[in-house]
Amino acid sequence: MGDLFWPGAEHAGGLFSQQAFLDAMIEVEAAWLATLVDHDVAPSSAADDLQGLFGADQVDRLSDEAELGGNPAIGLVDLLRAGVAQRNAVAAEWLHRSLTSQDVVDTALMICARDARRTLREHEDRVVTALAALAADHRYTPMVGRTLTQHAVPITFGLKAAHWLTGVLDAADDVAALRLPVQIGGAAGTMAAVVELADADRADAMVKTAAERLGLEPSAPWHTTRTTVTRLGDAMVRTTDACGHLAQDVLTLSRPEIGELAEGAAGGSSTMPGKANPVLSIQIARAALTTPALAATLHLAAAAQVDERAGGAWHAEWATLRTLVRRTIVAAAQTGELLEGLQVHTDRMRATLDASSDGIRTEQSVMAKLARHDPAGDYLGRSAEFVDAVLARARTREGTR
Amino acid sequence: MGDLFWPGAEHAGGLFSQQAFLDAMIEVEAAWLATLVDHDVAPSSAADDLQGLFGADQVDRLSDEAELGGNPAIGLVDLLRAGVAQRNAVAAEWLHRSLTSQDVVDTALMICARDARRTLREHEDRVVTALAALAADHRYTPMVGRTLTQHAVPITFGLKAAHWLTGVLDAADDVAALRLPVQIGGAAGTMAAVVELADADRADAMVKTAAERLGLEPSAPWHTTRTTVTRLGDAMVRTTDACGHLAQDVLTLSRPEIGELAEGAAGGSSTMPGKANPVLSIQIARAALTTPALAATLHLAAAAQVDERAGGAWHAEWATLRTLVRRTIVAAAQTGELLEGLQVHTDRMRATLDASSDGIRTEQSVMAKLARHDPAGDYLGRSAEFVDAVLARARTREGTR
Amino acid sequence: MGDLFWPGAEHAGGLFSQQAFLDAMIEVEAAWLATLVDHDVAPSSAADDLQGLFGADQVDRLSDEAELGGNPAIGLVDLLRAGVAQRNAVAAEWLHRSLTSQDVVDTALMICARDARRTLREHEDRVVTALAALAADHRYTPMVGRTLTQHAVPITFGLKAAHWLTGVLDAADDVAALRLPVQIGGAAGTMAAVVELADADRADAMVKTAAERLGLEPSAPWHTTRTTVTRLGDAMVRTTDACGHLAQDVLTLSRPEIGELAEGAAGGSSTMPGKANPVLSIQIARAALTTPALAATLHLAAAAQVDERAGGAWHAEWATLRTLVRRTIVAAAQTGELLEGLQVHTDRMRATLDASSDGIRTEQSVMAKLARHDPAGDYLGRSAEFVDAVLARARTREGTR
Amino acid sequence: MGDLFWPGAEHAGGLFSQQAFLDAMIEVEAAWLATLVDHDVAPSSAADDLQGLFGADQVDRLSDEAELGGNPAIGLVDLLRAGVAQRNAVAAEWLHRSLTSQDVVDTALMICARDARRTLREHEDRVVTALAALAADHRYTPMVGRTLTQHAVPITFGLKAAHWLTGVLDAADDVAALRLPVQIGGAAGTMAAVVELADADRADAMVKTAAERLGLEPSAPWHTTRTTVTRLGDAMVRTTDACGHLAQDVLTLSRPEIGELAEGAAGGSSTMPGKANPVLSIQIARAALTTPALAATLHLAAAAQVDERAGGAWHAEWATLRTLVRRTIVAAAQTGELLEGLQVHTDRMRATLDASSDGIRTEQSVMAKLARHDPAGDYLGRSAEFVDAVLARARTREGTR
Repeated sequence: MGDLFWPGAEHAGGLFSQQAFLDAMIEVEAAWLATLVDHDVAPSSAADDLQGLFGADQVDRLSDEAELGGNPAIGLVDLLRAGVAQRNAVAAEWLHRSLTSQDVVDTALMICARDARRTLREHEDRVVTALAALAADHRYTPMVGRTLTQHAVPITFGLKAAHWLTGVLDAADDVAALRLPVQIGGAAGTMAAVVELADADRADAMVKTAAERLGLEPSAPWHTTRTTVTRLGDAMVRTTDACGHLAQDVLTLSRPEIGELAEGAAGGSSTMPGKANPVLSIQIARAALTTPALAATLHLAAAAQVDERAGGAWHAEWATLRTLVRRTIVAAAQTGELLEGLQVHTDRMRATLDASSDGIRTEQSVMAKLARHDPAGDYLGRSAEFVDAVLARARTREGTR
Repeated sequence: MGDLFWPGAEHAGGLFSQQAFLDAMIEVEAAWLATLVDHDVAPSSAADDLQGLFGADQVDRLSDEAELGGNPAIGLVDLLRAGVAQRNAVAAEWLHRSLTSQDVVDTALMICARDARRTLREHEDRVVTALAALAADHRYTPMVGRTLTQHAVPITFGLKAAHWLTGVLDAADDVAALRLPVQIGGAAGTMAAVVELADADRADAMVKTAAERLGLEPSAPWHTTRTTVTRLGDAMVRTTDACGHLAQDVLTLSRPEIGELAEGAAGGSSTMPGKANPVLSIQIARAALTTPALAATLHLAAAAQVDERAGGAWHAEWATLRTLVRRTIVAAAQTGELLEGLQVHTDRMRATLDASSDGIRTEQSVMAKLARHDPAGDYLGRSAEFVDAVLARARTREGTR
Repeated sequence: MGDLFWPGAEHAGGLFSQQAFLDAMIEVEAAWLATLVDHDVAPSSAADDLQGLFGADQVDRLSDEAELGGNPAIGLVDLLRAGVAQRNAVAAEWLHRSLTSQDVVDTALMICARDARRTLREHEDRVVTALAALAADHRYTPMVGRTLTQHAVPITFGLKAAHWLTGVLDAADDVAALRLPVQIGGAAGTMAAVVELADADRADAMVKTAAERLGLEPSAPWHTTRTTVTRLGDAMVRTTDACGHLAQDVLTLSRPEIGELAEGAAGGSSTMPGKANPVLSIQIARAALTTPALAATLHLAAAAQVDERAGGAWHAEWATLRTLVRRTIVAAAQTGELLEGLQVHTDRMRATLDASSDGIRTEQSVMAKLARHDPAGDYLGRSAEFVDAVLARARTREGTR
Repeated sequence: MGDLFWPGAEHAGGLFSQQAFLDAMIEVEAAWLATLVDHDVAPSSAADDLQGLFGADQVDRLSDEAELGGNPAIGLVDLLRAGVAQRNAVAAEWLHRSLTSQDVVDTALMICARDARRTLREHEDRVVTALAALAADHRYTPMVGRTLTQHAVPITFGLKAAHWLTGVLDAADDVAALRLPVQIGGAAGTMAAVVELADADRADAMVKTAAERLGLEPSAPWHTTRTTVTRLGDAMVRTTDACGHLAQDVLTLSRPEIGELAEGAAGGSSTMPGKANPVLSIQIARAALTTPALAATLHLAAAAQVDERAGGAWHAEWATLRTLVRRTIVAAAQTGELLEGLQVHTDRMRATLDASSDGIRTEQSVMAKLARHDPAGDYLGRSAEFVDAVLARARTREGTR
């Protein structure tokens, strides 16, 4: 799953890949078929896991049919039905009963999101752990503060790391809070066909069963209310915002004239072998520059909903979500790698501060002196308290996992 | 506060206006001065409400100085100090002590947001009430469902209204969950100057006092971690998403060939007096087309944070937030007005359904029949249950206010 | 090259694919190696077409290395050099001499754009031809004009088609005007290494030779001035704007209640076999909803240029450009298909107009009458003149090809 | 016209202000009235310049009416007609004849754009002059090249300035190429009413007359083909791209650790009087971060056109265009100011280069040596040739004005 146009894409592995999407759509159909059996709507002979029905050639055919129908579910159902009919005529009859193509696609996207979130949270954990260590280790490491590119009063590097960590924890909270629901609404979101097959009460229970089978949450149909999608998008962007923020600091502080930070394994050059480029930070910054526009597209699509299924606005979501989620995972992975290898040159930090302090004149005037003082003094102590508060928050997160 | 470029702007009144921003910055300085006195850091003679220090000519001067310093707080402090010195030299001495210009601007923006949210929630209430009434009244009003612009199986208009309401409630949840914090960090976000004036423990208490005085939440400094701003932006867009969605449906369903809905007081034409344009829906749709880009800008700014105060990325937020919040309020106000006056032509809905049913062939085949059946039948009953669940959610909201 | 997340992607074939990008990078290295030989900088024994050096396993390795170096050119040069060394040690020595990785990547992107434009223009031709036919055929086909969703004074369908055509011709002008240059600047855009190998005058001639070999235009280095990229992006969006505009009209006018247009081969439904969805229009509208954000990303990247090569801002372009160009081609292809099959129901147009005319009251009052009059009358004649002017413009385009 | 949310806004003066928009709409009505008289369609007694008909209270009333009609032209025509009737009943009768509100609004926007372009080009001239001087003066000023934040081979500062200039000239070309047309189409873009009043041939001549009176270009109606608007938007963004690019370099190179550039009159701090912030660069960078999203909104609106006038998509343009154009002018003005005052520390450039050269190892190895060589040597000479080519291009521009 590499991508020469987006180096590092392999971090996202097969998440939200063609195959993953296809598998997820089959998983939806299989879970619903099982649910029909579970609730005695379909006979037990209808049970079928729908595995092994696809060859590579059929994927191509599916792709062609996706354009004809406007989505990949229509052709998929035809192929699955034809395939399963060979071994189980009853399954072929009950397959996709009372679902609509949007049910299959939307639920499959949520399955892809479910798997992606699992991987994302692993990377978040790694990032949080690395940042907590940096913040703790450098609780009393003084460095010059910089505002609007110019030197300001001193800070500690631990405080900077704690601010980075705050952004990551905020994003992680939003990722954790996401509800990923099944979509089971039928042709116009009324569940009419389910109600016809079963009764209204059983319909609810069936949605619950299907959701449990898929590791998603039960939900009323949400064909045209796309909060789920925009919240997912916003949480992804919040994640790349946090990663991008710290990458910008690394890019700045690893400039040779500053030299306070350096990437552990900096990248090479095709012409200058000795050059050490901050390639991870660069690739993280790249992601952060592109994701806000993708999440904005999801909002545009949400606002352009119309009828009981929107033409265009719904279709614009799939690839947008795919790219947005995958880039977020790549950025989070690269951020973990960046932080674990980050070199902190405390000597350069100290040297910059010493050279700068005379020039830093504040209305309190004492500020510069403080930085040359006991690092455990009141002022740095205050920053250390901030650090500790953020570390405590990070530990709470671990506790809740 | 009208705007010929954005008709309806007067719904946002003075919220996030120049004057409101200026007043909010003065409110911040006054609250902090009072806090210094409250905590015996400054003598009680330093107390001053900082009111009445500005004339209109000074606003112009402030505007000029804002460019010189890159933000409006620097010039403001100079003008306030010069002004208050005329009546209270002690206040002049203690004014702005240990604050930085970002503290003043960020907290002032949160004050503007605090006031804007209050107004926004009033409009949300109106929208929720109107939608709940529509959903309840039309629980059993059948109409044709439409997917991808074409007729699908029947729905009820109550169900459609309930979906609209779901989107609005989702957005309102996000608006309600926003935390609007004070920003008190000093020159580089370390609170060094506060700690110097008081001690570390008292510093925390002082932030709390200032927050209480301003109706905001206490917070550690967030100069470069902009989650507060992006969450605010995302919640605004989620609101216009929800409003935009229902406006699209009204625009479609009020086309003369469809005629199932109509705006209560449709707009005129400069050339065709008899023409009734869905002007509120148009203006709501307009907002929804523009806000995602604005929220994306806030994310870009959040990701471009660097140093202890970012040059450009911070400055890009102010006007973006202003426009985003004001447009959201205008859209919410217009949505309330739209819904309260909305004409529902149940006869046209029924006629379309009757004309269409023969053509709607589903695999269940019974669907079309159902719609001509007893409106209290199983199928419409299911939609009514959805409606009731959303209405219950809407009532919960009222309960918590 | 199908994509289940973006049905219809196969219209873009291998354009801007991984393989195309890889091939283009090799094409750049080969053209430069040949140029070195052409100008007697390298010995004639250095000539090598660099073909056949790659196996599929190396593509994976290249993908891994791309992350390490931040771009795919660095690893590529290593692999090419190692490969070619097996058969031509002199070529291995001269390969990539005086180029930098950005030269290879940027020129390869222009090669991809060169090929993409060729295909795009074929689709544009098809769209222009189909639109010209519609405009000509329906020069006197009256239909109701609609403004703000409501009926206004009559127009002709030919006039509507001529407006669509104007948008397409505008976009095509911008696509035709694009200059696609080589990038040959060396490590910091100074061509220092070329000048060292040859002299300054020959350096210019070498750039020209390389450009001719590649079918691109000669150019001074443009490592950080990205007008080429943003103009390319803007031209793509202008194309999807034009396609999206007409798709919106088709989506509206093919609603069953209106029925004035219909897609030739409308798409199916997974549950309702009789339903005919305007799937091409839907997929075109989808594209138009997503491309403005992509072009905006290219602008953001252009504005974030810094140093002699920007970290992040450059890297964000590649995948963005790939997706933007491919979607534009898919949309143009689908627009051609849509228009060639478009069904124009002039009877429905006439019927709507007749039903509506009594209700259309203009200050001129005569308007409605006119539409029932002689179709060659003054008023429709005026629209026909507009049509003819646009048709003349379309013919000019053909003449210049 | 200052804006505390957007310091520096006063550079855009009254351009695209409420008053300017209002005046422009009146200018349109007056020009059209005069045109009707010019062509003997209206009697000469209908002539009226429409001046002096508005009081401040009517602006507020207009603002209210704008929401009722969805645009400001409807109320304006009513007020103008009532006003002019007091002094000229014939003018009142002929006012706005055969125009529609979109004609008035669109043409007024083009008038605003016409005036804005005039101011923008003055700022462009200033920027071009300043950049040409920097490029010429520093043709042989060596400095270290930087790629991906790290030191690369040497460049000259003149070359860097020439690259900045190239971006500005590219943008200026696009600004100069803009066609700003009148919009005269009538109710549905057919010019039906004009044709009724005159004949088809005279209608064309009338459009030409009106265009000449307004300093705009004649055009067929473009109610739904919005190329004019998106090209205008794209040219603005291209301008802020170019300004943003150089601002990023100034922000980087004026960091105290680098110190190769400095703003002439750097901004102050509310707490640290000695601090010199690069406030102009910051404000320019701010603009460049926000404009791509605004231009993207114009594209979205162009693609969402439908019917003969789009509800929402048209309305979203006005304020977007206003903000986009004004910000571009402010950024261009600040860029001129920045460049005129820019301090170039050639000693620091030299010192960085000397310190860095030993570490710069290129495959050509000779590179570092070259920079310490004769500044007129081959390598720097090559950069000087680039500079001269760009300067020649800049001079061509002057020649054509």
